[in-house]
Amino acid sequence: MSEKIAVLGAGSWGSILANLLTENGNDVRVWSNAPEQVKELNEKHTNEHYVPGFKYSDKLVAYDDLKAALDGVSVVLFVVPTKVMRLVANEMVAVLEETGNKPIIVHASKGLELGTHKRLSQVLEEEIPEKNREAIVVLSGPSHAEEVAKKDITLVTAASENADAAKKVQQLFMNKYFRVYTNHDVIGVEMGAALKNIIALGAGALHGLGYGDDAKAALMTRGLAEISRLGVALGAKPLTFIGLSGVGDLIVTATSVHSRNWRAGNELGQGMPLKEVIDTMGMVIEGIPSTQAAYELAEQNHIDMPITRAIYDVLYNGKDVKTVIGELMDREGKPEID
Amino acid sequence: MSEKIAVLGAGSWGSILANLLTENGNDVRVWSNAPEQVKELNEKHTNEHYVPGFKYSDKLVAYDDLKAALDGVSVVLFVVPTKVMRLVANEMVAVLEETGNKPIIVHASKGLELGTHKRLSQVLEEEIPEKNREAIVVLSGPSHAEEVAKKDITLVTAASENADAAKKVQQLFMNKYFRVYTNHDVIGVEMGAALKNIIALGAGALHGLGYGDDAKAALMTRGLAEISRLGVALGAKPLTFIGLSGVGDLIVTATSVHSRNWRAGNELGQGMPLKEVIDTMGMVIEGIPSTQAAYELAEQNHIDMPITRAIYDVLYNGKDVKTVIGELMDREGKPEID
Repeated sequence: MSEKIAVLGAGSWGSILANLLTENGNDVRVWSNAPEQVKELNEKHTNEHYVPGFKYSDKLVAYDDLKAALDGVSVVLFVVPTKVMRLVANEMVAVLEETGNKPIIVHASKGLELGTHKRLSQVLEEEIPEKNREAIVVLSGPSHAEEVAKKDITLVTAASENADAAKKVQQLFMNKYFRVYTNHDVIGVEMGAALKNIIALGAGALHGLGYGDDAKAALMTRGLAEISRLGVALGAKPLTFIGLSGVGDLIVTATSVHSRNWRAGNELGQGMPLKEVIDTMGMVIEGIPSTQAAYELAEQNHIDMPITRAIYDVLYNGKDVKTVIGELMDREGKPEID
Repeated sequence: MSEKIAVLGAGSWGSILANLLTENGNDVRVWSNAPEQVKELNEKHTNEHYVPGFKYSDKLVAYDDLKAALDGVSVVLFVVPTKVMRLVANEMVAVLEETGNKPIIVHASKGLELGTHKRLSQVLEEEIPEKNREAIVVLSGPSHAEEVAKKDITLVTAASENADAAKKVQQLFMNKYFRVYTNHDVIGVEMGAALKNIIALGAGALHGLGYGDDAKAALMTRGLAEISRLGVALGAKPLTFIGLSGVGDLIVTATSVHSRNWRAGNELGQGMPLKEVIDTMGMVIEGIPSTQAAYELAEQNHIDMPITRAIYDVLYNGKDVKTVIGELMDREGKPEID
């Protein structure tokens, strides 16, 4: 099966997924709004800022012209930062209105829209009229671009209300080292993906402050409980949080040095000011806006989220990370399940 | 509150818990059947084979005479290997028959009895007549003796059908760095504790074979699903598996270099023969007999446990670890929740 596929976004994850789809035999075009990056990908087949040292397939073509990238595609994969999802979707629709194709829309981004607190598939649903899309599918799970690049084994979830579309996406991505499971619970998969970054920030901060593995495992466990509470209140299925896109992604994000969110938390824990953490990362740290979104959603829905609240206080109220985390770990003993 | 407490077993976990209870102001006696170790604990306040470099409280007294250790105690904490639990319980009962005290029985061991597949609280229930015990409580959670020794923060669960006894145990152990939550689900807590060691062996083997973090997170996620399936079939509550004694302990055991089970799996993955792994560890690797018990329980109850089966094949059928793990990670793509 070979499809024409556009991948919108050429960061680490977008470019590596584009490469994987190319290696699976598809005709893939990766779009970026940075002409220098497009030139580097097309001429040198590298993407040094995002995936240093990696050589991309010479069959993968990069475009900075969205219309050219979208020409005749049956699948569009969005891997852009949360805050530009709506904008890019809107630009895509303008092109589809002209060309008339009706692709399956997939996204592999993780976050909640600031202000509206909407999930990314909701943003896509709002921006892309039904006549311009076949279905919307979410691809998510414990996956580092660096490991997929090395063909290490990775298992992810393809979630959609449209079971056929989920299956189609499963078949497109599946290969020897990338295993895809289908799932119906779009809400649960997206909430897990967005919220685990908050817990990863917290686990990183614990590490930076010098706490050990016991404390980190406890924070991750209590963190999983609170993100599940919020997710379930918003319509997710509880079981999804113990699947690949829930606890799986939490484990890989909160215990691996590859994770930006964990690294950002670690630097905060070591005493680096927030602004400096953001500046030195040079890539989007999705956990920061996700913390704000989750904090506000928890307030609105009267859900107790002590870990999220603690991290919110550090990020947005300038509270001292050591004090806040100390207080968090020092709450009264009580029954484990309320 | 000060109690007279006997701790039976002076390995890493038993000796460190005995020390913690001493520091909490109790009159604690730790029992071991190794006279040399008792002498070392009493004279040098060290336990070099188990916790190198650690200095125990000089108020902690070690005994090799079980009767002396049990004299007048109101609490007995069992931290002995699974395979001698029944024997030690039996010896304790002989003493209690003479002395007439009726202590709360706590155990902090992790495993299932070989052959009978019984949980350790079941073994204790069978061996200790009701007239010789106040209640049975299980203490479990993500906890490395090495980290508790350093006063790193650790959160655990005290589970009992007797809520008052669980609360009492919570109060006895609780301090600034050791936080105890109560729980009613004894079956879930014990099954999680015993079965996560199997998944830790698998995660270690993946690491030893050179797989990355994505693969490990996926194995842990699918592993959590299969141990929950077995636990629930045997009467556990599903939520317990996403608590401290379930996913919490799984995370700490399967991602930390402190874990014997992870280390044993890692050595198997690197190609060391099983016999050599066991010989060089010099301490009990509970995951090995637990794999056999879980495999047999899964067969009896018709529960699909592919990871357990794979590890069983390596440990007991002499199959090649690389082949077995390769086959495991290469199963057909399918829905995530069946």
